[in-house]
Amino acid sequence: MQLHLIKIGGNILDNPVAYEQALDDLTTLDGAKILVHGGGKLATQLSQKLHLEPNLIDGRRVTDAATLEVVVMVYAGLINKKIVAGLQARGENALGLTGADLNFIGSQKRKKGDIDYGFVGDIVKIDAKGIKKCLDDGIFPVFSPITHDGNGQLLNTNADTIAAQLAIALSPFYDVTLQLCFEQKGVLLDSKDENSVLLYLDSAKYAQLKANNSIHSGMLPKLENAFNALDQGVQKVIICHANQILGKNGTQLIV
Amino acid sequence: MQLHLIKIGGNILDNPVAYEQALDDLTTLDGAKILVHGGGKLATQLSQKLHLEPNLIDGRRVTDAATLEVVVMVYAGLINKKIVAGLQARGENALGLTGADLNFIGSQKRKKGDIDYGFVGDIVKIDAKGIKKCLDDGIFPVFSPITHDGNGQLLNTNADTIAAQLAIALSPFYDVTLQLCFEQKGVLLDSKDENSVLLYLDSAKYAQLKANNSIHSGMLPKLENAFNALDQGVQKVIICHANQILGKNGTQLIV
Repeated sequence: MQLHLIKIGGNILDNPVAYEQALDDLTTLDGAKILVHGGGKLATQLSQKLHLEPNLIDGRRVTDAATLEVVVMVYAGLINKKIVAGLQARGENALGLTGADLNFIGSQKRKKGDIDYGFVGDIVKIDAKGIKKCLDDGIFPVFSPITHDGNGQLLNTNADTIAAQLAIALSPFYDVTLQLCFEQKGVLLDSKDENSVLLYLDSAKYAQLKANNSIHSGMLPKLENAFNALDQGVQKVIICHANQILGKNGTQLIV
Repeated sequence: MQLHLIKIGGNILDNPVAYEQALDDLTTLDGAKILVHGGGKLATQLSQKLHLEPNLIDGRRVTDAATLEVVVMVYAGLINKKIVAGLQARGENALGLTGADLNFIGSQKRKKGDIDYGFVGDIVKIDAKGIKKCLDDGIFPVFSPITHDGNGQLLNTNADTIAAQLAIALSPFYDVTLQLCFEQKGVLLDSKDENSVLLYLDSAKYAQLKANNSIHSGMLPKLENAFNALDQGVQKVIICHANQILGKNGTQLIV
């Protein structure tokens, strides 16, 4: 059976037309479906309104206690529940989740190395059978990028990683298509040219683009996650714009 | 089979010791369990930090669009997910919900009468069978006081009312004990004397206390909800302090 595992950025909420269209598109997909959403700009905006100083170490954002509260409010509260209500209005039996709910995703607080990232969790356990039971019951799970350590601590976790790890964990039960949607049409050969989308990207080409700096910053962990998923049983990975959920465009990764 | 339907105020989160104790107590209750939580002071505090003017008409709070976002963030996000993580840490298979999740609680926006309350929802539909299925699966549902209209709109809904309506809807399947916890030890004969707790309150006595103004303001809708539940099949209703979840004190309502 087919499972569509789709990740959208939280910033899609900033554009009401694109957002409504994305929800419409999700309803037309066949088979089982899971949505994972990120946080986008809303959490940053709320932090600014609350005058929280962005806590950056070596350019990387640290999730301190106050920031954790903000991301739990924005991701697990506002964004998640708006999406759930929007999907329910379209007849989809959506259920909004964090990793703490039903203990579906357990993580551990990232060890302090050179950098202490604060309340950031790395996934250690996914209850694939429990999630499969939801899907079998016709439920459409909607995951916010919040997990827990099993000792009562919520943790901020990268949405791309959650999507890729869920795709891997569920691949024994389904033919999984993992679709990572973001603000560009796909992986670009030239990051300054929106029309230079690669239709296919294999790991050799990826290594080459990485070496000559054509792919950099946020795209690197996204592609690492994606190739990792492909290596571990996920059948198809597509990187595309959120207005391409129906999958007629974007970059398909191949091993 | 026994079902404990417990409502706690969000303000219990303000007191970490009482909060941890309440979660401990919840784990020791036998039978099926549902928790409904309110919002308490956290939503007001966040509104103040965001410089949202409290929108009051005739002394009653109005949920405008900005306030709705705040309550969704605080209730469905921060409070709900902290409780879920805390219960999971205690081995309870908690699932945090709004009425939109799984379409469990449908409401309609309150009609504009003399006062327009804004984004406030009155419950019109509860999926008792769906909730029973969760309970049969060993799940501990945790409801935040947010519902939806089925057309994509989230709505702010009184937590006492949600608790009472859930108790009524589930009473055909369970022996339901409804426990409304708040900041006092029970219904007080003299609102200025904490030790004047009534052990039992019947509707005749209630009418009398209401008439002589011994019971007033927030206690009135709480008791209306509670007596209504008792009239409609709920077996037992207790009003008590959140540190009395185990039910050895408080006021028991009788018809």
